[in-house]
Amino acid sequence: MNTEIANFNYYNPTKIIFGKNRIEELATLIPKGEKVLITYGGGSVVRFGTLDKVKAALSEFEVGEFGGIEANPTYETLMKAIELVKAENYTYLLAVGGGSVIDGTKFIAAGALFDRNPIHIFGAGLGDKDPITKALPFATVLTLPATGSEMNSGGVITFVEKKAKLGFGSGVTFPQFSILDPELTYTLPTRQLANGIIDSFVHIMEQYLTYPVGAMVQDRFAEGLLQTLIEIGPKVIEEDNHDYNLRANFMWTATNALNGTLSPGVPTDWASHSLGHEITALYHIDHARTLAIVLPSLMEIRKHEKLGKLVQYAERVWHIPTGTDDEKATQAIAKTREFFEILGAPTHFSDYELDSEVVDLLVGQLEKHDLTQLSERHDQTLDISREIYRNAL
Amino acid sequence: MNTEIANFNYYNPTKIIFGKNRIEELATLIPKGEKVLITYGGGSVVRFGTLDKVKAALSEFEVGEFGGIEANPTYETLMKAIELVKAENYTYLLAVGGGSVIDGTKFIAAGALFDRNPIHIFGAGLGDKDPITKALPFATVLTLPATGSEMNSGGVITFVEKKAKLGFGSGVTFPQFSILDPELTYTLPTRQLANGIIDSFVHIMEQYLTYPVGAMVQDRFAEGLLQTLIEIGPKVIEEDNHDYNLRANFMWTATNALNGTLSPGVPTDWASHSLGHEITALYHIDHARTLAIVLPSLMEIRKHEKLGKLVQYAERVWHIPTGTDDEKATQAIAKTREFFEILGAPTHFSDYELDSEVVDLLVGQLEKHDLTQLSERHDQTLDISREIYRNAL
Repeated sequence: MNTEIANFNYYNPTKIIFGKNRIEELATLIPKGEKVLITYGGGSVVRFGTLDKVKAALSEFEVGEFGGIEANPTYETLMKAIELVKAENYTYLLAVGGGSVIDGTKFIAAGALFDRNPIHIFGAGLGDKDPITKALPFATVLTLPATGSEMNSGGVITFVEKKAKLGFGSGVTFPQFSILDPELTYTLPTRQLANGIIDSFVHIMEQYLTYPVGAMVQDRFAEGLLQTLIEIGPKVIEEDNHDYNLRANFMWTATNALNGTLSPGVPTDWASHSLGHEITALYHIDHARTLAIVLPSLMEIRKHEKLGKLVQYAERVWHIPTGTDDEKATQAIAKTREFFEILGAPTHFSDYELDSEVVDLLVGQLEKHDLTQLSERHDQTLDISREIYRNAL
Repeated sequence: MNTEIANFNYYNPTKIIFGKNRIEELATLIPKGEKVLITYGGGSVVRFGTLDKVKAALSEFEVGEFGGIEANPTYETLMKAIELVKAENYTYLLAVGGGSVIDGTKFIAAGALFDRNPIHIFGAGLGDKDPITKALPFATVLTLPATGSEMNSGGVITFVEKKAKLGFGSGVTFPQFSILDPELTYTLPTRQLANGIIDSFVHIMEQYLTYPVGAMVQDRFAEGLLQTLIEIGPKVIEEDNHDYNLRANFMWTATNALNGTLSPGVPTDWASHSLGHEITALYHIDHARTLAIVLPSLMEIRKHEKLGKLVQYAERVWHIPTGTDDEKATQAIAKTREFFEILGAPTHFSDYELDSEVVDLLVGQLEKHDLTQLSERHDQTLDISREIYRNAL
């Protein structure tokens, strides 16, 4: 195992426009003369007036709308948007929503200029794969802090019939800018706030809880974000707590959790997301809530392999000063589980009235999707994944 | 005083190419066909072979050289480079060196395309000031971690006759990319390493030691970088300690100390740099070593105004758990002074055989440069600056 910081490239050209009442600046941020397609999801951006604010700010532009992008954006829906973009010659996309709308909009941006059928963006059994080399310019107005998609170049698309979620990304699918107004989160329901906190927390852990390579800055940054979420999480979900700084800290943490700040030169382990995706695909449990089931169980099963970082996590994030390494790790895992439970996310399948029957079905899905060598060391076999699922019953 | 996180914009398009043997990739990073002017300082990049490596990597390009950029780059020297760029139609600049060479190269890049005499970039009594709206593309190969100039858009230029150092910056003077190879630091003398550590440390403090606004991410990131420097500093300056991770952590910390990561939405106080610049201008003491004189004294004199953050600094960075707020602050200031001394940088004028005569002369310089309302609250008057200088005798 290499215990040096690996060579890395870092690049993130997205401009962040953060704070109160920034939507008003849209007309100065999008180049004059663009024909703008506004993309969004369900009704909340309509109901709470965000869409109206965006349209008012763009009154000097030719603007169209494409709503109905799903919480797990589907290929089928997004292909309709691509057709619309081509038919009506839109030149700029503006995603108004959370990670799903933004991920979907990235795919629309790339798909609209893709030389072949956009299915070839994915590969993975859907055909051969071509790189994304161009995309329509696009930007975002973030309404739900969680995925970091507002400041990265990746996305995940759902294929309904195949019960699959597939990722894509490229150097040309960064948003040109993202407006992050913490006050837009005041209308979010508690459950979505909790989901956002958990999703961000797990993103950080997936870039942190691996094996130590001595990347002191990346570790300290990860620990800082984790401590922030632990401190603010329970307050963010308090009913009617519209403390501005709480929401601003939450929003900026969620962005930094997956914008490239934490991963340079360090190993990463996305197994929690892989195992969680299959739960969502089969049982339609919210993405973040599947992570709350998977991560604590994974930490327990993989305690030995991850002990070095688990002890560091215990000491620095949870401030557990005494005990053997094993005791510190055990306590830190318990604290993590408790944190998710405090946020209202159960950590066992039984809480969803699912029993041992799910284990083989989920492992079968992992096998079908070729997810047989997970973790930073590629040593998380199907047997280990089975143990992780079983341990979470 | 606003105690909320302020609205902010964040933008940083510089690509970072970090790690071992990355100079080899230069030919793939600079667009084919560019005519490249390599800029550098004194003899060290020649002596240690870095310049040869760069030229070898660019063997397919038409390449010229401009050496002799000073440790505090002068307007006069840089104007000669601008003439050369124009006369020989260079289309791309590549700075090989530390912050001085990179700052200077930013000025060359902007000055070569400036519509008027480049003196109008500065204003500040040198004439009216025009904004920088275009610049030649440029990149950097960093040899000395310290200033963060490799990943920001600002620079400081020295006007010898006027005994002035003046800053400039713009959205078009970010390096296109910067190569950060920690192994290039192995040939640096101890004193330059120590200077880089101190300069970075003070950059972080200037964005952190203000009044609290509850920016939890920015605070945690700053505290993480400070802890990293405290941990690695004494080891980095050990003779012949060529531990790769030590140098990699140092280099990445110095870059993050001044690349926009720490400042979004928080007050900043650049008074240490302002007071330090005048010491360098009059007494030719290394930039970083002037900061080691100024900062501990400033912390003592401004303890009351900065108490909230000083206590947080004491608790989180120096792990001082007990005592009154005043005691914690006092201890943390002493620790800071001790840290600079351990790095070989004296913290009193007397260590340089300068006595009380310097105080009025330095205050006179501040007055001449209109630096009469410093600090995050603009309440650091000349009288307070005088106290800070006197307290450092």
